[in-house]
Amino acid sequence: MADTYDFGLVGLGVMGRNFILNVADNGFTAFGNDLDKEKVNSLIEEGGDTNRINASTDASTFVNSLSAPRKIMLLVPAGKIVDAVIEGLLPHLDEGDIIIDGGNSFFTDTDRREAYLKEKGINFFGAGVSGGAKGARKGPSIMPGGSRGAYQHVKPIFEAVSAKYKGEPCVAYLGPKSAGNYVKMVHNGIEYGLMQLTSEIYDLMKKAGGLTNEELHETYASWNAGRLQSFLVEITSDILAQKDDLGDGHLVDKILDKAKQKGTGKWTSQNAMDLGIPVPTIDIAVSMREISALKTERTQADELYDRPTPEAIVKDSLVNKAEQALYFSFIITYAQGMHQLADASKEYGYELQLGEIAKIWRAGCIIRAALLADITEAFNGDNSLQNLLLSPSFVKKVQETVDSARELVAYGATSGIPLPGLSNALTYFDAYTNSRLPLNLIQAQRDYFGSHTYERLDREGVFHTDWE
Amino acid sequence: MADTYDFGLVGLGVMGRNFILNVADNGFTAFGNDLDKEKVNSLIEEGGDTNRINASTDASTFVNSLSAPRKIMLLVPAGKIVDAVIEGLLPHLDEGDIIIDGGNSFFTDTDRREAYLKEKGINFFGAGVSGGAKGARKGPSIMPGGSRGAYQHVKPIFEAVSAKYKGEPCVAYLGPKSAGNYVKMVHNGIEYGLMQLTSEIYDLMKKAGGLTNEELHETYASWNAGRLQSFLVEITSDILAQKDDLGDGHLVDKILDKAKQKGTGKWTSQNAMDLGIPVPTIDIAVSMREISALKTERTQADELYDRPTPEAIVKDSLVNKAEQALYFSFIITYAQGMHQLADASKEYGYELQLGEIAKIWRAGCIIRAALLADITEAFNGDNSLQNLLLSPSFVKKVQETVDSARELVAYGATSGIPLPGLSNALTYFDAYTNSRLPLNLIQAQRDYFGSHTYERLDREGVFHTDWE
Repeated sequence: MADTYDFGLVGLGVMGRNFILNVADNGFTAFGNDLDKEKVNSLIEEGGDTNRINASTDASTFVNSLSAPRKIMLLVPAGKIVDAVIEGLLPHLDEGDIIIDGGNSFFTDTDRREAYLKEKGINFFGAGVSGGAKGARKGPSIMPGGSRGAYQHVKPIFEAVSAKYKGEPCVAYLGPKSAGNYVKMVHNGIEYGLMQLTSEIYDLMKKAGGLTNEELHETYASWNAGRLQSFLVEITSDILAQKDDLGDGHLVDKILDKAKQKGTGKWTSQNAMDLGIPVPTIDIAVSMREISALKTERTQADELYDRPTPEAIVKDSLVNKAEQALYFSFIITYAQGMHQLADASKEYGYELQLGEIAKIWRAGCIIRAALLADITEAFNGDNSLQNLLLSPSFVKKVQETVDSARELVAYGATSGIPLPGLSNALTYFDAYTNSRLPLNLIQAQRDYFGSHTYERLDREGVFHTDWE
Repeated sequence: MADTYDFGLVGLGVMGRNFILNVADNGFTAFGNDLDKEKVNSLIEEGGDTNRINASTDASTFVNSLSAPRKIMLLVPAGKIVDAVIEGLLPHLDEGDIIIDGGNSFFTDTDRREAYLKEKGINFFGAGVSGGAKGARKGPSIMPGGSRGAYQHVKPIFEAVSAKYKGEPCVAYLGPKSAGNYVKMVHNGIEYGLMQLTSEIYDLMKKAGGLTNEELHETYASWNAGRLQSFLVEITSDILAQKDDLGDGHLVDKILDKAKQKGTGKWTSQNAMDLGIPVPTIDIAVSMREISALKTERTQADELYDRPTPEAIVKDSLVNKAEQALYFSFIITYAQGMHQLADASKEYGYELQLGEIAKIWRAGCIIRAALLADITEAFNGDNSLQNLLLSPSFVKKVQETVDSARELVAYGATSGIPLPGLSNALTYFDAYTNSRLPLNLIQAQRDYFGSHTYERLDREGVFHTDWE
């Protein structure tokens, strides 16, 4: 056993246990801490062979086993538990020590904690970790924000344990204060959008083309070998192949269609509204989880209304169009998320490098996708790019796939197959690329009933009309 | 001049001035207060003939001129000014006096103020007022929430000044605490949705049918004589007839297409997300105002992308379908807003009577519409109705108009004419009335990467699969 350990980790649930084993795999010594004696023992047992892992239920033993400056990562549920763990550690810490919150904390909580701990001479990082349990074990994408100076102490460990994309680590210092948690929040918002799109395209191919689960599995697998290559397309293919252990047929058909959420998608939408940045594909993904939860009402309503019978589409043509529409709408979703990050960076002083963010998302995280290499290039070429849709390299990709999106949205509307994510991606595109929208009428209405005034196209100034 | 006055009003801007004149018109004596000497003098001048109006810049003079219990309404901008005005009044008030905030205060601010003033023995109401400047003068819809007991003192005045629908006053005690401000917030959220829908249907008829402003004016006027009768359709007709004083042609064509917002629509969407209630037609209306504000980006993007050339639709057929689609999507928007109110009532203990709310919206307010009489009946018949779409009386209205919505959404998608509000109304309908949504796949994805577990259709329990 080591005398002092390189890295401390509080919270030995699935994520924490996997993360600390990953740290040890990479040659660092690591000490775990959890109130649960069983989790502590089980970690010691599993890590015993390496001679690089130890653990204790006692906060003092834990802290005193770490080398200075102490690097302590928390992988505990977001909320009050984070504050409680911090208070438990504080009496044992020395100036210059580092606490890293690896959970999905709300970014203003991170700002509050960072300011509180700075007064006590403790460096605090909010560092979102994406990749799920497997990512934590084998290499996640890590999104740290906090003190730039203190990051040097954490950097070697994070770079070692993170996922690699062509040898480059999927971690980088992102910015001050809550920059890391904010970026992870938007990552999750994008994730909500991509998941909704993947699921409605699956539904469409089933209902319009009559594709079997086997065919759907093969379709997603083939897409994953092309420009749609991404973690979510890959696992969708796996999921569609999974047989049901408890009965006949495929498991996916037995799963209840009520999707849960833990709040990060909702936060993304709510905060985008505070910033005034439109992210409608993410908004609708949040709404769809809510609608899905209303299963009883949906079942009642289903009996009250007739739905059109979808006209069948030839399979090959459908699959081809679906691939294009999914690619189109994935681009739009990333564009909305990156737009939000660009604005948040100004609003909160994060000084984000959007190319750097896309770069560390290329592997390890849930939204990793071949597209992110192109997004990285677009923003590295121009960090002041307001929106991905304005990047010359994306115009062609969008232009050559949007017509399939148009066709399928039209088909979904007439057939009664809901494609809310795709529809919102398309109307966002059609509105964002339109220099003249009909909101002149809305300004006229506002001036009519509330004297809110309006501007004119043909001259400067602020005007009011007595309409009646 | 009176010795003591029945009603006090702080804030003599357009709304306040009009409201106090309305009070005097109805036979009550009223005393105004504003820091601005000019506004005070101008009110005294205009109200002089009635012998029922007086005003002062001095808070003490103002308060001491009112009869007990004092009824003081604030019509000042929401935010810190409300707190400042309250603090300025407090030293002069007696126990049992009543302060009514008539602005669009955020509902949690109202809860805070209500609790703070209750400790001092002062009754506090949050009472949203809708109807714009003209409504305040001639009869607004008023949405008061606060102490049920104290409402008796306010009731005679509010019932007198409010708009009347077939003789019934458009005001009612709605519930405790911030119930009134909450209802007004959702009223405004619905307003955002209806305005977006009105504006995109105008755009569609212009681009797809080549309707002139004159024809559009006549179309909205004829709609306003039918089931679409509503304030917003009525003023849209007026707006489309308005000639430009500063140049040739119609004013609407000269107005800049950047729509502003004051936050109540955004609050509605954000709070709906907190409640977990889907209001996607309101969400997209908020997003469209945001997109409209990005005029520079839109102009850049417009040059980068090709848009399809819309195929012309025969005018009569288009107008007929547009009427049906607008009616359909108006219903959906009210359904979403009422759904949010139903849930908020449980969450915040408002004990709202949804039929009563629809009833006081039938006249005076911005979202007044013939439809609200039907909505009133639906909820009066069943206050536990979860969603307007489940009301038998609405099934037929929706079923006979949804096909036009389908056709126009399809047309908009293929033609590149953005109809985001209508699209979201349709996908909401198609999802809400569907007992099987593809979110089983999302639950599978969540379980795959995060071990978040899932439920099954065929048996009770919570399940996890080792997918790989």
